[in-house]
Amino acid sequence: MKATKPRRMTDRGRKTRAALLAAAERLFGVHGYEGTSIVDLTRAAKLALGTYYIYFPDKKTLFIELVDQLGIRLREHVALRAGHATDRLEIERLSLLAFLEFVAEHRHLYRIVRQADFVDQKCFRRYYDRMAQPYARQLREAAKRGEIRDGNPEVMAYCLMGVADFIGMRWGLWEKKPSPAVIAEALAFTRGGLLPQMPTSRRSPRHLAARPAAAVAH
Amino acid sequence: MKATKPRRMTDRGRKTRAALLAAAERLFGVHGYEGTSIVDLTRAAKLALGTYYIYFPDKKTLFIELVDQLGIRLREHVALRAGHATDRLEIERLSLLAFLEFVAEHRHLYRIVRQADFVDQKCFRRYYDRMAQPYARQLREAAKRGEIRDGNPEVMAYCLMGVADFIGMRWGLWEKKPSPAVIAEALAFTRGGLLPQMPTSRRSPRHLAARPAAAVAH
Repeated sequence: MKATKPRRMTDRGRKTRAALLAAAERLFGVHGYEGTSIVDLTRAAKLALGTYYIYFPDKKTLFIELVDQLGIRLREHVALRAGHATDRLEIERLSLLAFLEFVAEHRHLYRIVRQADFVDQKCFRRYYDRMAQPYARQLREAAKRGEIRDGNPEVMAYCLMGVADFIGMRWGLWEKKPSPAVIAEALAFTRGGLLPQMPTSRRSPRHLAARPAAAVAH
Repeated sequence: MKATKPRRMTDRGRKTRAALLAAAERLFGVHGYEGTSIVDLTRAAKLALGTYYIYFPDKKTLFIELVDQLGIRLREHVALRAGHATDRLEIERLSLLAFLEFVAEHRHLYRIVRQADFVDQKCFRRYYDRMAQPYARQLREAAKRGEIRDGNPEVMAYCLMGVADFIGMRWGLWEKKPSPAVIAEALAFTRGGLLPQMPTSRRSPRHLAARPAAAVAH
């Protein structure tokens, strides 16, 4: 390799690293972690095999880096779209739209993240945990401001993530994109889950017999 | 193989088939589909290699059969636990508990089903679709009876499945089991998602500005 100025080397290094991550997103997504070799990765990124090892010591390290990066980029994308909103329900609406946009841009997101369950358990859980922890903090603050009901914010965060995940899978991946009606329905569901609930006395007579929330799991 | 009476052969056949499916659930769960060979499967089921091919033509067919069977058994288990209830919210409560029980009994359920995304797309989608379709029908009927609000029942079904999936993953798999408080919170969330929502005028002043449900995705 020809000697280059440190500054140019850094730029080229970043580009090479990004090319490897882009190749990894495509190949791990299409062929799976087991079905992809370092040779495949360098070939797709148009690099010599030896170059790989300047950036990553093995296949697993690149995979983990890819999952972490996808998580960071998803959270950045959501923050970009929802960051200016102040009301929690509006933030939820913008966040779901941003998540669905990200899924449309990163069609292999689900397949890659779910493989982490086999490749590296810590990385797998970290992906969700790094999403859930700030989410829960924000929900706690929104409850303090009276924008949503008071509840266990981590459970609420996982409920919201579960809804987004399944709507994104069913309508974002299996169809071209979710219709406005599908998104509106999912938002109505999560809004109901977050807002104070109607007192039992205001429900239909059938629900007079329903157990109160706190006793429901016993 | 020694000749046996048809009746005994059928019994033995069923047992052998069940042994292969049990071995598959364990091995595909621990080592993954790619990391498990037919030799591994027959060894774990204490069968001669040749016996495998009496039951399944290849590894993929056994895997697909396993995913389909897990789906059937999960739906049967939920029906067993929730079948006697009549009110939709009570059915939801019992169904979530039944799902979490099933996850505790079948620790590899998630890993197996999610691998289907790579092994056989049709099988992967069928697993969720066969859950969602009857679910949606039941929700539509519950809405007609006035037990839940009127909404798109398939979207509601996927929202409920997403919540159960993520609660089951976070607290059912990553911890020993979800606490009653976690389950109660998840049920409060889904109940809010299903019940008629409080009219805007009854919410805090902040929410007077919130958009109505139908307009929320535009």
